[in-house]
Amino acid sequence: MSKYSIGIDYGTLSARALLVNLENGEECAEAVYEYPHAVMSEKFLDGTALPTDFALQHPRDYLEALEYAIPTVLKTAGVSGDAVVGIGIDFTSCTLIPAKADGTPLCFDEAFKHNKHAYAKLWKHHAATPYADKLSELMAGSELLRRFGGKFSNEFLIPKLAEIADHAPEVYRAADVFIEGGDFMTWTLTGHRTMSCGIAGFKAMYTEEDGFPPNDVLKTLHPLLDGVFKEKLTDEIVYPGESIGGVTEEWAKKLGVPQGTSVSAALIDAHAAVPAAGIVDGNEMLFVLGTSGVQMVMSDEVAPVGGICGIAKHGYIKGRYAYEAGQVCLGDHFDWFVKNCVPASYAKEAKEKGVGIHALLTEKASALRVGESGLLALDWWNGNRSILVDSNLSGMILGMTLTTKPEHIYRALIEGTAFSSRRILDAFEEAGVSVGNILVGGGIAEKNPLLMQIYADVTERELRLVGTKQAGALGSAIHGAVAGGAFPSVKAAAGVLAKVSDKVYRPIPENVARYRAIYAEYKTLHDYFGRGVNDVMKRLKAMKTAK
Amino acid sequence: MSKYSIGIDYGTLSARALLVNLENGEECAEAVYEYPHAVMSEKFLDGTALPTDFALQHPRDYLEALEYAIPTVLKTAGVSGDAVVGIGIDFTSCTLIPAKADGTPLCFDEAFKHNKHAYAKLWKHHAATPYADKLSELMAGSELLRRFGGKFSNEFLIPKLAEIADHAPEVYRAADVFIEGGDFMTWTLTGHRTMSCGIAGFKAMYTEEDGFPPNDVLKTLHPLLDGVFKEKLTDEIVYPGESIGGVTEEWAKKLGVPQGTSVSAALIDAHAAVPAAGIVDGNEMLFVLGTSGVQMVMSDEVAPVGGICGIAKHGYIKGRYAYEAGQVCLGDHFDWFVKNCVPASYAKEAKEKGVGIHALLTEKASALRVGESGLLALDWWNGNRSILVDSNLSGMILGMTLTTKPEHIYRALIEGTAFSSRRILDAFEEAGVSVGNILVGGGIAEKNPLLMQIYADVTERELRLVGTKQAGALGSAIHGAVAGGAFPSVKAAAGVLAKVSDKVYRPIPENVARYRAIYAEYKTLHDYFGRGVNDVMKRLKAMKTAK
Repeated sequence: MSKYSIGIDYGTLSARALLVNLENGEECAEAVYEYPHAVMSEKFLDGTALPTDFALQHPRDYLEALEYAIPTVLKTAGVSGDAVVGIGIDFTSCTLIPAKADGTPLCFDEAFKHNKHAYAKLWKHHAATPYADKLSELMAGSELLRRFGGKFSNEFLIPKLAEIADHAPEVYRAADVFIEGGDFMTWTLTGHRTMSCGIAGFKAMYTEEDGFPPNDVLKTLHPLLDGVFKEKLTDEIVYPGESIGGVTEEWAKKLGVPQGTSVSAALIDAHAAVPAAGIVDGNEMLFVLGTSGVQMVMSDEVAPVGGICGIAKHGYIKGRYAYEAGQVCLGDHFDWFVKNCVPASYAKEAKEKGVGIHALLTEKASALRVGESGLLALDWWNGNRSILVDSNLSGMILGMTLTTKPEHIYRALIEGTAFSSRRILDAFEEAGVSVGNILVGGGIAEKNPLLMQIYADVTERELRLVGTKQAGALGSAIHGAVAGGAFPSVKAAAGVLAKVSDKVYRPIPENVARYRAIYAEYKTLHDYFGRGVNDVMKRLKAMKTAK
Repeated sequence: MSKYSIGIDYGTLSARALLVNLENGEECAEAVYEYPHAVMSEKFLDGTALPTDFALQHPRDYLEALEYAIPTVLKTAGVSGDAVVGIGIDFTSCTLIPAKADGTPLCFDEAFKHNKHAYAKLWKHHAATPYADKLSELMAGSELLRRFGGKFSNEFLIPKLAEIADHAPEVYRAADVFIEGGDFMTWTLTGHRTMSCGIAGFKAMYTEEDGFPPNDVLKTLHPLLDGVFKEKLTDEIVYPGESIGGVTEEWAKKLGVPQGTSVSAALIDAHAAVPAAGIVDGNEMLFVLGTSGVQMVMSDEVAPVGGICGIAKHGYIKGRYAYEAGQVCLGDHFDWFVKNCVPASYAKEAKEKGVGIHALLTEKASALRVGESGLLALDWWNGNRSILVDSNLSGMILGMTLTTKPEHIYRALIEGTAFSSRRILDAFEEAGVSVGNILVGGGIAEKNPLLMQIYADVTERELRLVGTKQAGALGSAIHGAVAGGAFPSVKAAAGVLAKVSDKVYRPIPENVARYRAIYAEYKTLHDYFGRGVNDVMKRLKAMKTAK
């Protein structure tokens, strides 16, 4: 009988389970569960307005996803749960849940269900900015700060903790535990609370040498944070592919898998895809293009790169330094555009042609020569993670004339995100971290050949597609398989299960030359608006909420 | 029996006739004729693509407008043509028509009907930029150039002539006459070819002291221009309110007015409105808000103002210096936005509410506090006329986030045009040309109270509406009445016929304070992008058409 592993990839709007045959790597079945509460960013559950920069989720959605997706893949594939040797989980991060000691999210409690701070704060919840800035100040000059590109992100765990302590001390006090989404899921399944080393290293500022940030700093950031790591978080760090325990009796029944099925240490969603793309050693980069973008590369050494979001030992593969850079808003730009800026006439045309609006815009944008739109965008609709680490930056577009059309803007937004990617690659090279072949995964990479060609032309790199649409879930399944003992190491598992496509996008020399000129303009504006020459974006943002 | 005058206002998309009772100023009837060919900016008559920056019109539309609108107002009001003492005409400018000696537009000729250069080049035809730039170079240091703010506009007559000479010498040679739209209409009606002093002074660079620009300069600009003013234009300059002749027998029959009815010297469209708003002396400003914006003020002295489009003696009222500044693209921004950027969901909402899309956006934008959008726009979708005199600038908007909505952008576009207006007022004051009360006319002023309030808040001025929706046509009727002898002067006619509204928009102190902060940001970016610190807009524009 074949053996199987299940990977579950918790994304921003849905969770996806993938059942993988461990003999041949076949992806036997997948199931997607869209979160009923999606992302609460403008309105809370009860319809009241949320403050600016909020992004909340309901943890019940995560649990329901598990109950739906695992039985569904088994049923769809006609595979018995007994054949499953391991489960791997990856999750958006830092997505922080306040919980009780028994693992119940605080927002399930009647006393807290109306309290917005009791819900999961999604990775892109950006209301903790003041605490991130203060934390950066408090740790100025430290090696740790250097590793994070000179500035801590407002998406990190400690700023989010401080925000809760400051705005909702009742939630802070009532929470026995603060836990990230990925660790919450493995805790739920096994009853064993751990902290994934990727989450610890990338989001909780943990290093092997120094542990978590010093308590003095935390106390200064907010008095309530005194002792928080000791009291409300665990220091049991677990590694990629490590089994943290077996599925409990209760959850084995719910899911239809054997009690005791191994569950591997959780991973940050994008990171799970690294071995799924066959990257286990060397200096290949995995670039995941989704609602946001992530660039991941490994090295045997630690070399701080300005503006890169983080470096963590064992972050992707045990034993190697993991570097992560990111574009906080990538596909989100295109969705914003389609939702807010595409006229009814285009919607009508798409309907008549029987294609989606993205497909129509892509078709029209593909007909443009490089530079023909005359537009240039700074893709900072949700701030800039790498290399400026500044969530108070905002989007800019220039070059509009009365003949500017939606497809011009659509293409300029794609190009803006490509220039951001190029800037990140340049930052790695400038810091001496060489980047080898680039593998590209994520929904947009699969769906949009125009975007991929633009990225190849702008980055001046060959871009090869990952060979699966579900690299995150496949990576989690790889880790689950290792945890379940089916392979001796992630490298061995990847050797059988990883998937690389034949599809390669190569730079077109004529386009490369034109894009170099536009990229030069991009860099000038990037530094003008992003590096303090003109802080107009920040001042305007401050005015939005000024009384 | 009451006497009447008819004013005809030739705008960008339509012509409007207004029948005015000269005893009481009653506006008895109006008729609008939409040009069947509208503006040809992307496609030529035969469907072929036009070059970038083209904006052509078909002169047949102008003639048809006359034949439709004058009989229609007489019929609508039940007024006999015999009661009409004068006809006044105003026209967009510089709108240039190549014609035969008998007054037939060259494009009516079978041999030229497929030649795009044989058609009327509309004021906003911007393909003559290289010739305007060269002309500015050739006249560097001259008093004339100083009067035009240091740079000649690509909308002017001589650059348009040079473009024809350079791109279509066959058209240039075949044209016996080049004539502006307004003068073309009075020529058509009377058989007498003249040049209005406003057109001469503002668009053909004529001064009483020096006449037209020297022939040497013209020859150097393009060899074919040698002798052009002598050979293909008239130097018979005529003044506001002056009768240039009577309606011919042919046209009297077509229009239903007596042969010999007086026709007054043509005016530039916006200028006609000055006496209609009661401005004949003093330092009141008339600000007309339409597809473009025009600021007009008079002085008894000539004082060059940096970046103002022009100063011409007798330009508005005989005997006084007329100053004109302009925003080449004002309402056009909002129309571009509605056409290209408003999503189907908003179109649906507007339909359900039974309101227009502009009304819906205005309603939503009105609910925003000053600064709440977080956006800032440079309103340069069609370049900047005042005070930068640069048609190669382009639009910019910054501050976008994923929660930016169409009404945010709509409001930012309104604010951008308001900041431009403020910058122009500041330029007048900086040059020592004081600006008194401001009267505001034009379709947008009537229709959009939100825009008017924003303009009052941004400019920190009381803004009073003109008391008629048809200030241009009323002004032309005033001039027609003077030409017909019903009044001894424009001032006397304005005393009876001018119309000022009770509606005044006053600055709201709280808004003023907030807008000062945003205007400061606007000025910084205005100078950064507009004054050569970063010429990215020009470089990107050049790339649009680069081979």
